[in-house]
Amino acid sequence: MKTPVTVLGLGAMGTALAQAFVSAGHPTTVWNRTPGRAPDLTGVTRAKTVADAVSASSLVLVCLLDDASVQEALAPAATEFAGRTLVNLTNGTPAHARRTADWATQQGADYLDGGIMAVPAMIGGPAAFVLYSGSEAAFEKHGPTLSTVARPQFVGADPGLAALHDLALLSGMYGMFSGAIQALALTSSEKVSPTAFTEQLLVPWLTAMMAGIPALARELEYGADDAAGSNLAMQSAGFVNLLDASRDQGVDPALLVPMGELLARAVREGHGDEDIAAVVPLLRTAG
Amino acid sequence: MKTPVTVLGLGAMGTALAQAFVSAGHPTTVWNRTPGRAPDLTGVTRAKTVADAVSASSLVLVCLLDDASVQEALAPAATEFAGRTLVNLTNGTPAHARRTADWATQQGADYLDGGIMAVPAMIGGPAAFVLYSGSEAAFEKHGPTLSTVARPQFVGADPGLAALHDLALLSGMYGMFSGAIQALALTSSEKVSPTAFTEQLLVPWLTAMMAGIPALARELEYGADDAAGSNLAMQSAGFVNLLDASRDQGVDPALLVPMGELLARAVREGHGDEDIAAVVPLLRTAG
Repeated sequence: MKTPVTVLGLGAMGTALAQAFVSAGHPTTVWNRTPGRAPDLTGVTRAKTVADAVSASSLVLVCLLDDASVQEALAPAATEFAGRTLVNLTNGTPAHARRTADWATQQGADYLDGGIMAVPAMIGGPAAFVLYSGSEAAFEKHGPTLSTVARPQFVGADPGLAALHDLALLSGMYGMFSGAIQALALTSSEKVSPTAFTEQLLVPWLTAMMAGIPALARELEYGADDAAGSNLAMQSAGFVNLLDASRDQGVDPALLVPMGELLARAVREGHGDEDIAAVVPLLRTAG
Repeated sequence: MKTPVTVLGLGAMGTALAQAFVSAGHPTTVWNRTPGRAPDLTGVTRAKTVADAVSASSLVLVCLLDDASVQEALAPAATEFAGRTLVNLTNGTPAHARRTADWATQQGADYLDGGIMAVPAMIGGPAAFVLYSGSEAAFEKHGPTLSTVARPQFVGADPGLAALHDLALLSGMYGMFSGAIQALALTSSEKVSPTAFTEQLLVPWLTAMMAGIPALARELEYGADDAAGSNLAMQSAGFVNLLDASRDQGVDPALLVPMGELLARAVREGHGDEDIAAVVPLLRTAG
């Protein structure tokens, strides 16, 4: 028999996870605070209480709205967790993950925190992956089962690391999207086709410029190479044109402003002849 | 004989342009406000005055520090421009380009504005391209000569369009870099290898997410499709974790803040069930 699995939470993501386990033949128990959610999900056992749901499986996944919902849902089932593995796939921060890991350990449970890098429609498909951190033993034991929903990738024993990597990737994505949004707002201020601009110029340009990101990471890890691009003094001076052009064209430059301020600060603090990697340490406010 | 070319300005970029023309066999005249710049540049004629430089060629490129330098440099040679083509490759805004185009037209010159999408080391190589706007007749006539320095791409008769496209692409690049910088600052707050994170996770993730940009452009141009991803209400709620995690880890969240504010504003203004394309029109402050 395949490993029995419990899924707590039947939002869009929880439902997709439960569906993937059922489809793969895992005995699947589900629970949702409000009964009657996901009526189309068949082949599952619907538990009346969270304690019943937890006691049904040695592997318990929780995927709720937020960290507060997790704390609230798990508390009544605390005494059921001994000897089980709790996998928390709820969006949260490293601090949330570390706190829930401590709680799980107190209950005698193994803990894995997971960051799902997919939308619900991608679950069970080839492009989805989940970052895990926490108990490596639990990951070794349940990795094959967890691979049912998405490719699992372990990023470290500190339970906060999955959320850290997840949020770092989302930060990268939102940065890329904020740039694209600004670019499209700018070009839309004139009669420029958004699709032609994006397909012929923006995507090829971003694809080419992406080569600079591993270069930036190498410089952070191994120190400065000869700067082949523009130094920060030149970039900071040129950045004014981006802000001015947005304002001239009736486009709010707000998305660009903090990058301009960061470049200007780097120059003020003596990094004018360095390249863009020099701004990363400036973002550290502690440590 | 190949078309004689004049290059005004021997900064790093102007020197690279002049070198490419000389190497391709174009009689090349150069001028720089401060004499003696670019001593290694051989095979060129060095003009003593900007008027001498302009009168030497029917095709005159100007590549200076900024728009103010262009105005200052060109003024003394105003009467020499009749019948020539002025190609302004100086970084500037659409407004700068339109003003210089008007000035050139008053002198009886054809005008092209250009945005160089390359650093000096890339000039003459296969990856460099230059966006041009302004006189299409001048572009048709001089395109082959201009292709000596970089692949030329004409984006429209409004002389401001090259700068608009250039600055839109730079906005996109700075957004992508700001995301990568935030991601690397976050992961660097723990003992995570910048290069391993970047090569194994960040670049593959950004490459996958880039598929969302043409989708966003299509939605702007043709209207909303079924939103396959997360709607803005979910994204705005989840964004709080990005800001909290940065603060918890001792990383300044400043680069992320305006995107979070834009998502929150979109929800407040009734776009909570739409997707990310809905924020683009919110950036328009006029028109």
